[in-house]
Amino acid sequence: MAGTVELASIPTLAAMQRAQAALSGVANATPLHVSRTLGTRIGASVWLKPECLQRTGSFKFRGAYTKIAGLSSDERSRGVITYSSGNHAQGVACAAALLNTRSVIVMPEDAVPAKVDATRGYGAQVVFRGLNSLERQQRALELQAEFGYTVVPPFDDTAIITGQGTVGLEIVAELPDVDVVLVPVGGGGLISGTALALKLVQPHITVIGVEPSGGSDAQQSVRSGHIVTLDHADTIADGLRTVRIGSLNFEIMRRYLDDIVTVTDDEIRDAMRFILQRAKLVVEPSGAVGVAAALAGKVNLAGKRVVIVLSGGNVDSGLLSSVLLSKHEH
Amino acid sequence: MAGTVELASIPTLAAMQRAQAALSGVANATPLHVSRTLGTRIGASVWLKPECLQRTGSFKFRGAYTKIAGLSSDERSRGVITYSSGNHAQGVACAAALLNTRSVIVMPEDAVPAKVDATRGYGAQVVFRGLNSLERQQRALELQAEFGYTVVPPFDDTAIITGQGTVGLEIVAELPDVDVVLVPVGGGGLISGTALALKLVQPHITVIGVEPSGGSDAQQSVRSGHIVTLDHADTIADGLRTVRIGSLNFEIMRRYLDDIVTVTDDEIRDAMRFILQRAKLVVEPSGAVGVAAALAGKVNLAGKRVVIVLSGGNVDSGLLSSVLLSKHEH
Repeated sequence: MAGTVELASIPTLAAMQRAQAALSGVANATPLHVSRTLGTRIGASVWLKPECLQRTGSFKFRGAYTKIAGLSSDERSRGVITYSSGNHAQGVACAAALLNTRSVIVMPEDAVPAKVDATRGYGAQVVFRGLNSLERQQRALELQAEFGYTVVPPFDDTAIITGQGTVGLEIVAELPDVDVVLVPVGGGGLISGTALALKLVQPHITVIGVEPSGGSDAQQSVRSGHIVTLDHADTIADGLRTVRIGSLNFEIMRRYLDDIVTVTDDEIRDAMRFILQRAKLVVEPSGAVGVAAALAGKVNLAGKRVVIVLSGGNVDSGLLSSVLLSKHEH
Repeated sequence: MAGTVELASIPTLAAMQRAQAALSGVANATPLHVSRTLGTRIGASVWLKPECLQRTGSFKFRGAYTKIAGLSSDERSRGVITYSSGNHAQGVACAAALLNTRSVIVMPEDAVPAKVDATRGYGAQVVFRGLNSLERQQRALELQAEFGYTVVPPFDDTAIITGQGTVGLEIVAELPDVDVVLVPVGGGGLISGTALALKLVQPHITVIGVEPSGGSDAQQSVRSGHIVTLDHADTIADGLRTVRIGSLNFEIMRRYLDDIVTVTDDEIRDAMRFILQRAKLVVEPSGAVGVAAALAGKVNLAGKRVVIVLSGGNVDSGLLSSVLLSKHEH
């Protein structure tokens, strides 16, 4: 019966449209940006969906805002908590502040100071605990029990997926005759929301997930028909280092996704450089996997109208600099 | 009588509107991008006009296309020539190719290979001559005489200014209640076109030019009331290393510009880093001077609605990397 429960949790098109209306004027507009150079290189027409320009620097703001806006006023008055140290933390912190809601973020004791500062900068309270995500999640649940906070999960949640689905609604509204959309896959929040929105509006659009070859839990899960948990994920794409996709995300992905392909870290670095040098956009490694797949010929895109989602741009200067210097100019 | 001739050469609003219509679907859309972080820092509402996302990576495409599209079919059949080695060369090369016009670019013998390749990539023929701009200009005039090419000047030209003015039309169309617009100043093409367009549509908009302190020919010219020629310009902002603004540009600037302020190279580097890290956009040094002026408090922007033009994003990876590593994170 678990499957039945999960199907009832799949977001509806109407819910995603309501989320889109609520985000209007709150989220940044991230209009499609044509990339003629990439198009010429792969023999296709290519547009980038630059979620690196989204509020807080990644798409995560959409889901977090949708989740918190949907809480009761009683829940909002008690506050929210999450245990991510990355883009989701910033998304939750910013969305909570906009909705006059207290937010608590549990971070690892070795968290990068810049990320701690950014999260605090949005008004969140940061609590440090342990070094791995299990310890953080445990601490978040303790605090939830003690203070009545609502947990804002990073991906395995109906409201989160509903919010991320607004990326898909925007793509198809701006480019109704798009043929193929490439989307990064981590825990599965962005890909499941985007695929669902696209297929509900235009079922003939091909939606392809891209994940790092060092953490291909989603590809293995969808191909085997059951959720595969990895021992660990080893990739430069820190946002995609999940070892297990969410169960609701899995149910959506197996129904609505056309394929999942993988890219290597070298291909990701090449793509980051290409996006910086030619498209003039700053992307983090996780945000570059779609362009990596296109440049490396992992998907047949010839003659197609292609949208590639750049999921975020939060990358530290040292990494960005090393990527810039690591190889030839494009 | 020179003044009279020059006044007759000042672009009209109608001409700029025609240029805008002609560029529609040819130039990239570069919608305003809100920067809440910068706004918070300076106590204002701030939007960036990201011409780094423009076709060929800078605003130069607008003027070049407008100029070449306005030639007679006879002139176009003979071809065009210019002697810039930077963004103007790429703008001319790309615009000429789109208009089925042959283009010849005279470059210095020590031109950066990446820029030569980029220019050839748009279909231009590159001719090398000498090491300074005077030698290049001389060679261009020889080739013009021999082959009947039309010279496409970088800034001192009615059609060029008309095309750059479309930046101003787009700003005021998207944000009619803008208070202040900051624009980089090199030879004066972008600032004169933009100021003219803004003031003709909304005379109360304040338009401020920003140039490097190591090459403040425009500031000195406007303040003294006559065109000042510098011995040389010393600044990281290679696109703004002009030693003398154009005469038509000067006539427009003295009539329509509210002020010109200067920024140091360190302030430019700080601004580039800020734009990369917080706005997730790649800008070249010349493109960052407006943000540099805002961050350094060179203009009183408190409580205002401010648009800052990022003029271009063509910067090599070595420079970008050194800027990223040169100081603290924002």
